[in-house]
Amino acid sequence: MPGVLILLGSASDKEVCDRAVAVLRELGVAVKATVASTHRTPDRVVELVRGSDADVFIGIAGVAAALPGSIAALTTKPVIGVPVSGKVNLDSILSIVQMPPGIPVATVGLDRGDNAAILAAQMIALKDPALAKRLEQYRAKQREKVHADAKTFEAGYEGGR
Amino acid sequence: MPGVLILLGSASDKEVCDRAVAVLRELGVAVKATVASTHRTPDRVVELVRGSDADVFIGIAGVAAALPGSIAALTTKPVIGVPVSGKVNLDSILSIVQMPPGIPVATVGLDRGDNAAILAAQMIALKDPALAKRLEQYRAKQREKVHADAKTFEAGYEGGR
Amino acid sequence: MPGVLILLGSASDKEVCDRAVAVLRELGVAVKATVASTHRTPDRVVELVRGSDADVFIGIAGVAAALPGSIAALTTKPVIGVPVSGKVNLDSILSIVQMPPGIPVATVGLDRGDNAAILAAQMIALKDPALAKRLEQYRAKQREKVHADAKTFEAGYEGGR
Amino acid sequence: MPGVLILLGSASDKEVCDRAVAVLRELGVAVKATVASTHRTPDRVVELVRGSDADVFIGIAGVAAALPGSIAALTTKPVIGVPVSGKVNLDSILSIVQMPPGIPVATVGLDRGDNAAILAAQMIALKDPALAKRLEQYRAKQREKVHADAKTFEAGYEGGR
Amino acid sequence: MPGVLILLGSASDKEVCDRAVAVLRELGVAVKATVASTHRTPDRVVELVRGSDADVFIGIAGVAAALPGSIAALTTKPVIGVPVSGKVNLDSILSIVQMPPGIPVATVGLDRGDNAAILAAQMIALKDPALAKRLEQYRAKQREKVHADAKTFEAGYEGGR
Amino acid sequence: MPGVLILLGSASDKEVCDRAVAVLRELGVAVKATVASTHRTPDRVVELVRGSDADVFIGIAGVAAALPGSIAALTTKPVIGVPVSGKVNLDSILSIVQMPPGIPVATVGLDRGDNAAILAAQMIALKDPALAKRLEQYRAKQREKVHADAKTFEAGYEGGR
Amino acid sequence: MPGVLILLGSASDKEVCDRAVAVLRELGVAVKATVASTHRTPDRVVELVRGSDADVFIGIAGVAAALPGSIAALTTKPVIGVPVSGKVNLDSILSIVQMPPGIPVATVGLDRGDNAAILAAQMIALKDPALAKRLEQYRAKQREKVHADAKTFEAGYEGGR
Amino acid sequence: MPGVLILLGSASDKEVCDRAVAVLRELGVAVKATVASTHRTPDRVVELVRGSDADVFIGIAGVAAALPGSIAALTTKPVIGVPVSGKVNLDSILSIVQMPPGIPVATVGLDRGDNAAILAAQMIALKDPALAKRLEQYRAKQREKVHADAKTFEAGYEGGR
Repeated sequence: MPGVLILLGSASDKEVCDRAVAVLRELGVAVKATVASTHRTPDRVVELVRGSDADVFIGIAGVAAALPGSIAALTTKPVIGVPVSGKVNLDSILSIVQMPPGIPVATVGLDRGDNAAILAAQMIALKDPALAKRLEQYRAKQREKVHADAKTFEAGYEGGR
Repeated sequence: MPGVLILLGSASDKEVCDRAVAVLRELGVAVKATVASTHRTPDRVVELVRGSDADVFIGIAGVAAALPGSIAALTTKPVIGVPVSGKVNLDSILSIVQMPPGIPVATVGLDRGDNAAILAAQMIALKDPALAKRLEQYRAKQREKVHADAKTFEAGYEGGR
Repeated sequence: MPGVLILLGSASDKEVCDRAVAVLRELGVAVKATVASTHRTPDRVVELVRGSDADVFIGIAGVAAALPGSIAALTTKPVIGVPVSGKVNLDSILSIVQMPPGIPVATVGLDRGDNAAILAAQMIALKDPALAKRLEQYRAKQREKVHADAKTFEAGYEGGR
Repeated sequence: MPGVLILLGSASDKEVCDRAVAVLRELGVAVKATVASTHRTPDRVVELVRGSDADVFIGIAGVAAALPGSIAALTTKPVIGVPVSGKVNLDSILSIVQMPPGIPVATVGLDRGDNAAILAAQMIALKDPALAKRLEQYRAKQREKVHADAKTFEAGYEGGR
Repeated sequence: MPGVLILLGSASDKEVCDRAVAVLRELGVAVKATVASTHRTPDRVVELVRGSDADVFIGIAGVAAALPGSIAALTTKPVIGVPVSGKVNLDSILSIVQMPPGIPVATVGLDRGDNAAILAAQMIALKDPALAKRLEQYRAKQREKVHADAKTFEAGYEGGR
Repeated sequence: MPGVLILLGSASDKEVCDRAVAVLRELGVAVKATVASTHRTPDRVVELVRGSDADVFIGIAGVAAALPGSIAALTTKPVIGVPVSGKVNLDSILSIVQMPPGIPVATVGLDRGDNAAILAAQMIALKDPALAKRLEQYRAKQREKVHADAKTFEAGYEGGR
Repeated sequence: MPGVLILLGSASDKEVCDRAVAVLRELGVAVKATVASTHRTPDRVVELVRGSDADVFIGIAGVAAALPGSIAALTTKPVIGVPVSGKVNLDSILSIVQMPPGIPVATVGLDRGDNAAILAAQMIALKDPALAKRLEQYRAKQREKVHADAKTFEAGYEGGR
Repeated sequence: MPGVLILLGSASDKEVCDRAVAVLRELGVAVKATVASTHRTPDRVVELVRGSDADVFIGIAGVAAALPGSIAALTTKPVIGVPVSGKVNLDSILSIVQMPPGIPVATVGLDRGDNAAILAAQMIALKDPALAKRLEQYRAKQREKVHADAKTFEAGYEGGR
């Protein structure tokens, strides 16, 4: 299908995945998502990654978040990692971002499924000019949202406070 | 030229940049690199990024490492951020990876200019099958290096210790 | 108008801004506040800062909090940064306080919009003796509040516990 | 004299102080600096601060860096705090930046005596247009330094590597 | 009176103070407690500490918790510091425990007003054999509490789970 | 052979491995060690672990230290993880210790190859009474070493200092 | 009885213990659990550990979590440590994992009583082939759970979102 | 003898101990120091602590620094803990300061053997007025040292720089 394959380390990270899927669909990027644990189902991760013709992979995982790195070990396609928040937070961030030489993972912020989706789209847009245009429109919408927020905000301050 | 544009926050981060350039050249990816500080030369960053037709941007910066995020604010092309080590380390990592919704930076590990280069190549390879092949060869070489290291290592253990 | 211009990275940081505005108004310092994201609306930040004749700027932002540093890059007026709390907290503190040489940001504590306001007033008071006097009265009121709290506190302990 | 009074928690922090003094002298700001420990000589700190007519105070201290906060408790003039690096680093940063409501300290980065000096000058420049002009020239020089660094840097990359 | 003088940086830390007072009263140690902020009321802290004939001082404070160190700067009597929890926690712990050479603060755990009280009693017991005995009884009671808890706990596990 | 199989993520971690091998040999436990990177040679890790009849596995790795968890995913034998020190340290510790439910890794301290070896021996000793005895002798030797150190230490203090 | 002896530093850590007991019972491993505080009842810990013929010990404790290390000091049997979450979290993790040379504690993740149980069973299974088989079945069940979760998850995504 | 008993977890912490001994001797406080590891020689710690009539105990230890807490578990005399620096530093600080309810350890700063000595002397001075006087003289000397440092420092700044 070419597009994005999202793997979640646990079904409990669904909310972060939902944000990624929503943004990818809004941007018109084909996406598939499923659960696959590096630690509980290592063979499943191997099969899914090696058997996929996705352009970009997204791995979403918390605590000792090995999933994105595991995916990156199995492909030379770009892999994006999303650390999921929990009791420590530095654990998932550092487990994903501090990859050793040779096998990068493109790490985004804690719970930022949305940013993983945008980043994946930016990568695919390198070969898809129409998507590149949609990304610029998406960015413009964000910009307008800030301007609108600013207007509401300033109005709220006029009278008093 | 299409390829990669690397911006360094400071000339003192050159060593990290050198690793990125070396890997990109080994992979046959066109690359330009220069110094541009978000905080000392904000206009220069704007000009360089908006005036560039690079496919991928890499920002290298330490401490309150705003450069990669600044680049990402100016383009919808993929932006990779490399945190540079210093006295605190968590400062540059968190300043780059914890981007707000809408503007992702693909963060790699501390001082990992090499991984930023590989990641950039992986992105460009989405539209360049020959580069994709070179990436697989590069990966294979890494794999063989580990096998060779293992052999040396095991031999060293045979006799004694 | 001369006075203080407050920029918020996101409308969701409004509560921190409200504290700053309330204190500035109590101290009789002119203040304007609006939303402007370094990452989503970089041009807006440039326009607002370069187009302002404010004496002091306050930037309020969370996570990879680049806004205060971005403002500081655009002016030689003093800039105050307020890190906003979230899931990590060290991210916004370090992203603001650890500015590189040449471009300082006067960082205050996590969510301390009130302290940013007092600090801004202290700066402006260097040229406004009446404001300097109001700051001393404000300080005296704080002192009296502690004395009053102490009395209530001690009374509560007299009888029992 | 009006100008800046710098207090160091310990003579061992002299290097950080030297950077501040050098920048202030370059900017033509009157400056005095001496050693005064909050913990070993609390009365000396009180005398120095209450007896000073400085416009701005800078406190430089490491570990449980209480000095800047102590100064701020004794004056309503702006106080800048410089955390000094050591074995932990987060200790001095957090001890200075996390001031309670009512008594701000304008915190700069670890060991950044230079930035403390620039910030102090920015505050004083609010009432001294000539200093404001020198600050802009100082900023311009930084900008030119980056441009020069960039040229050298690019030249170094031309031939090879 | 000799005994313990407890100072709180803010009335909002009352709960931690209550635990200290309750334990000191149970151990029969004279105690006074009041609010005194190092930053908002530095003179009050000086007066209270220098004017007190307490054997031991306890300072309770959060964030950039300078109060215990301030007390220690004013007396050669033992001073105990209790860091209060908040959004960062490492801030109050490190601000109290990392005192510079010459001026120790006996730091206890986060929010551990109870342990501050026991520690103060242990110090005073060096000259008060009856108190030393009460401390041993208090310890014995803790021990018995654990044994009782263990019995309940084991019983709960017998039948099932 | 039954015994211990040690995998190193990188030949550069050899020093930590050497300590483990030395202790295992001193305790008379069969040991094999080789290099195998989870990220660069995932198949090699699978082959080595699934093809091994070792009783216990030790994984030694730094930064985003996924190796021990990868081993644990492939076997139900006990797996010990040794975090290797670097620029951040919390990265390797948290990447190993914070394993998700179902797949434990027995984590030891930073660079503690020696402790990994002792722990492996303790596990194997559950079925090998002679090894259990050797472990008690090893412990006794440590105890005697402390007693000897204490004697030397006390002697050094007698005369002077 | 041989099997596992679990000690809790405090009855308040019962929930973490319950998970360990549940898993051990499911795996058919004999288990006893009780409360014993290293700090409040050091003699009780000595008696329980030295008087036990358990194969494996599990220590569950929070904050300055000395219990697992205390157990390890008293036996050469394997000891597993479970850090309990609280206000700081890094405290219990580091207090358990960073054991000095000679006395390892097999540390598992924060609040991971379940993983401590599995790890203990893995150790005992070295001499109990039937238990080894049950561990493999347990692992298979986890694997199937992931596959089932994946199916549910994918179904939820089919229709919409 | 009454006075101070210092226990070191390891002979390698001697330097920190030396500072404590030097200060105690300067203050005329009887002191004994020896090596005793909580983890390698738990019985030795019990014997030394229970067999001692010291007024105050000091425990010096690094990494998972359990020694001070172990001492505190065995006596109701005051116990002071000195965290020793290493690769992580937060480990020894948190392992000592975060003691559970009931068993306090008076924690001082990283490697601050000198402060542990002063604190011990302050405790003993509660029953020894002559020592109390010597402590005040010691404090006065520190104060004079700061004044002398300040003079040298200011002189150095007069001419130039």
